[in-house]
Amino acid sequence: MRTKDDEKQEALFEATVKVVNRMGFASSSVSKIAKEAGVSPATLYTYHKNKEDLLISTYLNIKRKLTDIAFEGIDDSNPLWDNFRRIWFNLFRFTVKHTDYFQFSEQFANSPIYDQVNQKEIDRMFRPMGRLIQYGIQQKIIKDMDVDMISAFVFYPVIILSNPRLCKNFSVTDEQVEQSFKMAWDAIKL
Amino acid sequence: MRTKDDEKQEALFEATVKVVNRMGFASSSVSKIAKEAGVSPATLYTYHKNKEDLLISTYLNIKRKLTDIAFEGIDDSNPLWDNFRRIWFNLFRFTVKHTDYFQFSEQFANSPIYDQVNQKEIDRMFRPMGRLIQYGIQQKIIKDMDVDMISAFVFYPVIILSNPRLCKNFSVTDEQVEQSFKMAWDAIKL
Repeated sequence: MRTKDDEKQEALFEATVKVVNRMGFASSSVSKIAKEAGVSPATLYTYHKNKEDLLISTYLNIKRKLTDIAFEGIDDSNPLWDNFRRIWFNLFRFTVKHTDYFQFSEQFANSPIYDQVNQKEIDRMFRPMGRLIQYGIQQKIIKDMDVDMISAFVFYPVIILSNPRLCKNFSVTDEQVEQSFKMAWDAIKL
Repeated sequence: MRTKDDEKQEALFEATVKVVNRMGFASSSVSKIAKEAGVSPATLYTYHKNKEDLLISTYLNIKRKLTDIAFEGIDDSNPLWDNFRRIWFNLFRFTVKHTDYFQFSEQFANSPIYDQVNQKEIDRMFRPMGRLIQYGIQQKIIKDMDVDMISAFVFYPVIILSNPRLCKNFSVTDEQVEQSFKMAWDAIKL
């Protein structure tokens, strides 16, 4: 059950995304974000010690929501191809609904605060993916590559393709998602 | 030969990238950019009618510099594989030197001004690529895909991989660039 506390935290999360996307990192103040969330700055400070902490937590929250959806229905007993395909479709389902989250993440990843993110926490969220990759390499199904290559060919293409501003011809239909999955799989398979 | 005029335009270009990357879109004013470039605001206005015009022209300039390098040495009489591989290496050569340009472009592409860009002008710059793709599809060497798919698997992966903040394990060595090219080629080849 969602508590009042959860609701306030969620409101702060959504407000941070909205304000940062509207005004940029530099101009987004704690007071503007609190106002947008409908809470007092004092309340905000009970959850986050400063603006940086709020931004980092927003970024981690996006990654958490993303990985929660991405790995839905993944079962290690299924063939690797099926699991990757399911992740691909799951990712599109998420990115299409949340282009605002990715706009925030892009800005965040290009800012110096990004270096303060606890990378171990991110790695933990992506662990199901890491396990699949390890298995695929070991079974000689996919190429022996590190996580950066996977990101570049299996993760970012989804973000790019589901951004209507960048990809005007791509529509997130089953057919186009399937076609793009074929390309991603060809990129990584041995 | 570079004229005084060229030099001022180039200084304005570099200043725009620098100021926008430092302060974000919203806070970057024409006067701050003029100051950074070492010209008066009046001089800036002889080249650009307003801030939006300056930002759009900066974006187009980045694309022009990028495509100038990307298609260096491309020869339609060479095998398609060689041409794509050369473009891939050229792109890395460019992106590694100019992460600041891509930081600017990311911000730009996520802002509403992006919709005002003359897409035909961009298409014209990328024409050599369009020609190669058309030939490859017609000769059944590469998959029948539109330009968005190409961007997602052949263009953006380079930008992602050469961003040291996002890809800490990837180093732009001949070996890693070659390995990533193999993946890109596998993604697009029929």
